[in-house]
Amino acid sequence: MSTTVDRAQIEALVRSAIRQAQSGSSQPSPSAPVLSGAPGGEPLGWVNGKPNLRVSISARHCHLTDEHVEILFGRGSVLEPDKDLYQDGFYAAKQTVMVVGPRRRMLPNVRVLGPTRPASQLELAFTDSISLGIDAPVRHSGKIEGTPGCVLVGPAGSVQLDQGVIRAARHVHMNDHDAAFYGVSNGDMMQLVIKSKDCSVIFDDVLVREDKAAKLEVHIDTDEGNACNLDAATEVTIQPMPKPCACGH
Amino acid sequence: MSTTVDRAQIEALVRSAIRQAQSGSSQPSPSAPVLSGAPGGEPLGWVNGKPNLRVSISARHCHLTDEHVEILFGRGSVLEPDKDLYQDGFYAAKQTVMVVGPRRRMLPNVRVLGPTRPASQLELAFTDSISLGIDAPVRHSGKIEGTPGCVLVGPAGSVQLDQGVIRAARHVHMNDHDAAFYGVSNGDMMQLVIKSKDCSVIFDDVLVREDKAAKLEVHIDTDEGNACNLDAATEVTIQPMPKPCACGH
Repeated sequence: MSTTVDRAQIEALVRSAIRQAQSGSSQPSPSAPVLSGAPGGEPLGWVNGKPNLRVSISARHCHLTDEHVEILFGRGSVLEPDKDLYQDGFYAAKQTVMVVGPRRRMLPNVRVLGPTRPASQLELAFTDSISLGIDAPVRHSGKIEGTPGCVLVGPAGSVQLDQGVIRAARHVHMNDHDAAFYGVSNGDMMQLVIKSKDCSVIFDDVLVREDKAAKLEVHIDTDEGNACNLDAATEVTIQPMPKPCACGH
Repeated sequence: MSTTVDRAQIEALVRSAIRQAQSGSSQPSPSAPVLSGAPGGEPLGWVNGKPNLRVSISARHCHLTDEHVEILFGRGSVLEPDKDLYQDGFYAAKQTVMVVGPRRRMLPNVRVLGPTRPASQLELAFTDSISLGIDAPVRHSGKIEGTPGCVLVGPAGSVQLDQGVIRAARHVHMNDHDAAFYGVSNGDMMQLVIKSKDCSVIFDDVLVREDKAAKLEVHIDTDEGNACNLDAATEVTIQPMPKPCACGH
């Protein structure tokens, strides 16, 4: 079974190599300024004068500190980039770790993403957390206070994380041009609308994470991607959370 | 790993033993007649004069013909009820089968649901279908023409299904009183709204399956249940698919 599970994980990672879709909210903020291109061309990630939405499935993965990389993979070790992610500067590393939960349940090969971070963190889908026997709360990346821990095992050693196991909350990376286009700001919530044959879904609670260096990209987990059969989606849009209106909608 | 997976499945089955919630659409059909109680009391499944919505997670399972029960479990065998489902007359059987997909991937213990049916059918979540290596389409129960097959293995024999592997489409069982309350008919589509901390979801494409003997119950699969953390949901409602209105919503 472990081979099968790992294969599924790899498939999910490969699939997360991305879905691209027509972007543009059905109701872009009418007050959004028409932005001139950034110096040297269009805003980062834009195509033909518009944001270019990607929705990516984040398969389970972990982030490590420099210290933990050395403990797990040997003194002097650093993360080795294997595959670039869509966000510039981020990558899937060649390294994987085994994750061991309570009652000695485990996930044999969890991909490490780079670069390293100030705190180690394990991001699971809910299905993974059930398999591992860990009741992982939905949290935004970095908000790990009070979350459960686990044991990470590498070829050179192991690390006991006292906290850091989360189910990553949905979020959308975007730069200031994207934010202006949609009329949203860092920390706002948006809706992700996925049209998919016989299984369309609207995901609420998509947190805006604005950064000048970001490209427009929604991250959902494997459960969410599977629930709407993202690979077969026919239309993918994001929009600000709808507000009640006079007609009662 | 097989033990872990099976345990997760069992947990899902037990969990599907149910989420109960305040029902009542936020916009019940204004034309819905006020129904008098069925002979002897309220309409089936109603509580305090209103429909009583349940949302259940259907873990992977299969339905079998009488003939296949005998092949898999031995001549003269019948399904033995182990646990009643919410819908009267339906049950999880004591029997399970092993399912083998292409490339000899397998799921070791898939629960059989009773009673038997005119055609055998395997219902998986998308995650299961990836594990099994079968590209199962989203279909409504019984609509299995042209779907992939698999091999079922029981203690007494095995069966090659030429078709019947599906990802069960979301649906809501209801009786005629429920349908009148919501202003919908058999075959209509509804929306399932799940409010859950940090991961609320609106599921479109919920098919109405009306039957006089049914109790109001939505069935979603494990991926869908996990995507919205159904166990922790704070509010669960169904409503007809919204129509565009004059204000542009």
